[in-house]
Amino acid sequence: MTKPSLPQGTRDFGPEVVRKRQYILNTIRTTFELYGFQPLETPAMENLETLMGKYGEEGDKLIFKILNNGLNDAKNIDKAKAAFDNVLLGKNDKNLTERALRYDLTIPFARYVAMNHGQLTFPFKRYQIQPVWRADRPQKGRYREFYQCDADVVGSNGLLNEVELAAIYWQVFSKLGITVEIKINSRKILAALAEACGGSDKMVDITVAIDKLDKIGIDKVKEELLTRGLDEHQVAIIVQYLDISGSNTEKLNKLKELVGSLPAGAKGIEELEFVIGHFATLVLADPAAASPLLVDFTLARGLNYYTGIIFEVKAQGVQMGSIGGGGRYDDLTGLFGVPNIPGVGISFGVDRIYDVLEELKLFPQEVQTGTQVLFFNLGDAESKSAFSLMQSLRNSGIRCELYHEQAKFEKQFKYADKKNIPFAVIIGSKELEAKTCVVKHLGKGEQQEVKWEALEEAVSGL
Amino acid sequence: MTKPSLPQGTRDFGPEVVRKRQYILNTIRTTFELYGFQPLETPAMENLETLMGKYGEEGDKLIFKILNNGLNDAKNIDKAKAAFDNVLLGKNDKNLTERALRYDLTIPFARYVAMNHGQLTFPFKRYQIQPVWRADRPQKGRYREFYQCDADVVGSNGLLNEVELAAIYWQVFSKLGITVEIKINSRKILAALAEACGGSDKMVDITVAIDKLDKIGIDKVKEELLTRGLDEHQVAIIVQYLDISGSNTEKLNKLKELVGSLPAGAKGIEELEFVIGHFATLVLADPAAASPLLVDFTLARGLNYYTGIIFEVKAQGVQMGSIGGGGRYDDLTGLFGVPNIPGVGISFGVDRIYDVLEELKLFPQEVQTGTQVLFFNLGDAESKSAFSLMQSLRNSGIRCELYHEQAKFEKQFKYADKKNIPFAVIIGSKELEAKTCVVKHLGKGEQQEVKWEALEEAVSGL
Repeated sequence: MTKPSLPQGTRDFGPEVVRKRQYILNTIRTTFELYGFQPLETPAMENLETLMGKYGEEGDKLIFKILNNGLNDAKNIDKAKAAFDNVLLGKNDKNLTERALRYDLTIPFARYVAMNHGQLTFPFKRYQIQPVWRADRPQKGRYREFYQCDADVVGSNGLLNEVELAAIYWQVFSKLGITVEIKINSRKILAALAEACGGSDKMVDITVAIDKLDKIGIDKVKEELLTRGLDEHQVAIIVQYLDISGSNTEKLNKLKELVGSLPAGAKGIEELEFVIGHFATLVLADPAAASPLLVDFTLARGLNYYTGIIFEVKAQGVQMGSIGGGGRYDDLTGLFGVPNIPGVGISFGVDRIYDVLEELKLFPQEVQTGTQVLFFNLGDAESKSAFSLMQSLRNSGIRCELYHEQAKFEKQFKYADKKNIPFAVIIGSKELEAKTCVVKHLGKGEQQEVKWEALEEAVSGL
Repeated sequence: MTKPSLPQGTRDFGPEVVRKRQYILNTIRTTFELYGFQPLETPAMENLETLMGKYGEEGDKLIFKILNNGLNDAKNIDKAKAAFDNVLLGKNDKNLTERALRYDLTIPFARYVAMNHGQLTFPFKRYQIQPVWRADRPQKGRYREFYQCDADVVGSNGLLNEVELAAIYWQVFSKLGITVEIKINSRKILAALAEACGGSDKMVDITVAIDKLDKIGIDKVKEELLTRGLDEHQVAIIVQYLDISGSNTEKLNKLKELVGSLPAGAKGIEELEFVIGHFATLVLADPAAASPLLVDFTLARGLNYYTGIIFEVKAQGVQMGSIGGGGRYDDLTGLFGVPNIPGVGISFGVDRIYDVLEELKLFPQEVQTGTQVLFFNLGDAESKSAFSLMQSLRNSGIRCELYHEQAKFEKQFKYADKKNIPFAVIIGSKELEAKTCVVKHLGKGEQQEVKWEALEEAVSGL
């Protein structure tokens, strides 16, 4: 018998970890719902054709495909052989794999909207918190199964949606106690920059190079732009763009000089001003208050489908990649034959948020407590009374256990200690007769003897 | 472009359904935690060898296997070809599929306990609520992806665990408003019956036949037993056994006459008496109260690994298979090289519980409400005031939306109606000036004009 093990890149979450993760997810979920977002859940498996071709060539390779069942049935065997030959040529074939595991939450959401758009009420505001799977090479902080946590509004062009999504970021991270910077930019500004540098065909080159600024620095970015065919003058414009600094207002004013005369630039600036302004007056309710929103013209969000405002969230006081990101897109469901559904969405990076909370020691004590009270088991009559008391605490919402068998004090204390249970309630023969119990706060080492009817109060409030 | 679709046997859960499912799962989860059970989550994918051979030949065929990635890489291609030939012969081969999707929650739990038994504190009480996947032929009420919801205590032989698990059933279904019968029996009694009928080698034959009683009736069961090699005298004992009726006490007394002299029979009866007696005194807190526990000697729970007390839960007032089941087993982790870990567990059938609540119209109204308040959008200044009011309601935990753009009354009412939003809050130019709003209860058709500071009270309490 081989020792059991886990597939590479996957994790078990034990009790302490699940409780902490649930704390994060519940905080996000509750906030999504306060803002009118409704939950959606899609299956882990999608038809292979729903997923293929949606994530680029590299993405396609990372999709986990599910082998059809019954391949060795006589009726399937010939087709399966032919299909396998296709797969070895790098093609997909339904006779070998019809289904695959969800790679993100966006494509399943688009598939759902396309399938149900006749029944849905628009704008449709949905959130979705589910695992996704990717056959990436596992490394520190990168897993083959991980949760995504998305909220999107589709079917609305209103910029108040962007204001609300920024408010959700702000509210969630405030509740979690994480100070954040919410970087904001607009793809329209990047488009205007491309135009100022000779044409929209430069957009991809410029975006790719800017995206690397953090990692490789301005000199290497300049080199890359020249290699990609931009001339010295164009590169100079981009350097000027990347150099813009100051407060949000100062930055926007400087940008106006650079691209404000181009329609895309003017529009992008106007949109940023709208979101930042409304966030200050409506969400912060004080235009003079320090805003977590930070205009960052170097923000590009890679080669994805965004077309308007884009966001990225960074935690302060800790070294960590972005813990959230999102933006506006023009067309969610065109790939599935339903055009003209624009939208805007954000997502939270649950694993990184977990690491930030852990590193800054921000998980509240109560999240770290499972069972709150352990009743000792000191004999048949004693444990019967303990059980009855325990049931009444449970009815009041207090999480309790009775030690599973009669045992020495020491053993029962050790159990409470290992399980991090804050209170031990002890009923021996003496206490049984007096209808009292000894309540011991294990963390503080304090103890008191209380009447049975006073027990609930004695263990309330950790 | 083909129309997008879902894989056979899988489901999207839209907002209303997710909310209802969450209501069920949260009720169960909260109760598990009140009883000291701790959450565990395992990955969707397990190594294929962890799963194969654990579910019988039929089960093995229903496991979804994941195709290895990169089969057409030059370095893999020859091995993949050889592996595929093996698969066509009905064998497993790591060079084609290393991983598979979770088929139930028990084997991953056993794998987890075996991998971590050095670090775990026993008794280990875990619950687990996650989807599983089976390549079953889809049919009404049977899906290829569905949730399981299990709680187990391992590392304890104490029968108080059984009492607590029965209490969990009772408490969960009471909270959900479902009246249930919790059928209870012991595998030891079935073992004693087999002994009384000529030997323990008859156990499987007897169990299989008894399990069919509901479906085929007593005459066919007799036939089957004769076919399976039992003689007339032995069949007569079984018929006598199946005929036992009356109250729990009467049934147990009659059973004593039949198998009480056999050690397994005596032990099984003693255990049933313990669980039923302690449930009455400790959980119901009134030995004279009607108990949901119902001794049912025809309960066998199929050909699984149970060895002691077994449970099965039936909803009253509705035609539906069992909505829960479980029991005691001797050896959770032996298959993974860690012997002597006994346990007892129960599970809830979430899909069926959903159907019962739907059929009996037991979902509470609040579960059916997403957004509670829709603020109308009647212009720029009006909507700014609406937004500020909305933020303060959100801060008080009330779920709100502002209609996404300025639009006609009718359109905004229609949106609220379709989304089942109970309150509309209307601020027009007149209300803006007077710092009031019109609050309309859409279900009741009532409306009132209130000062801004009185809004929260006006929309509190649905």
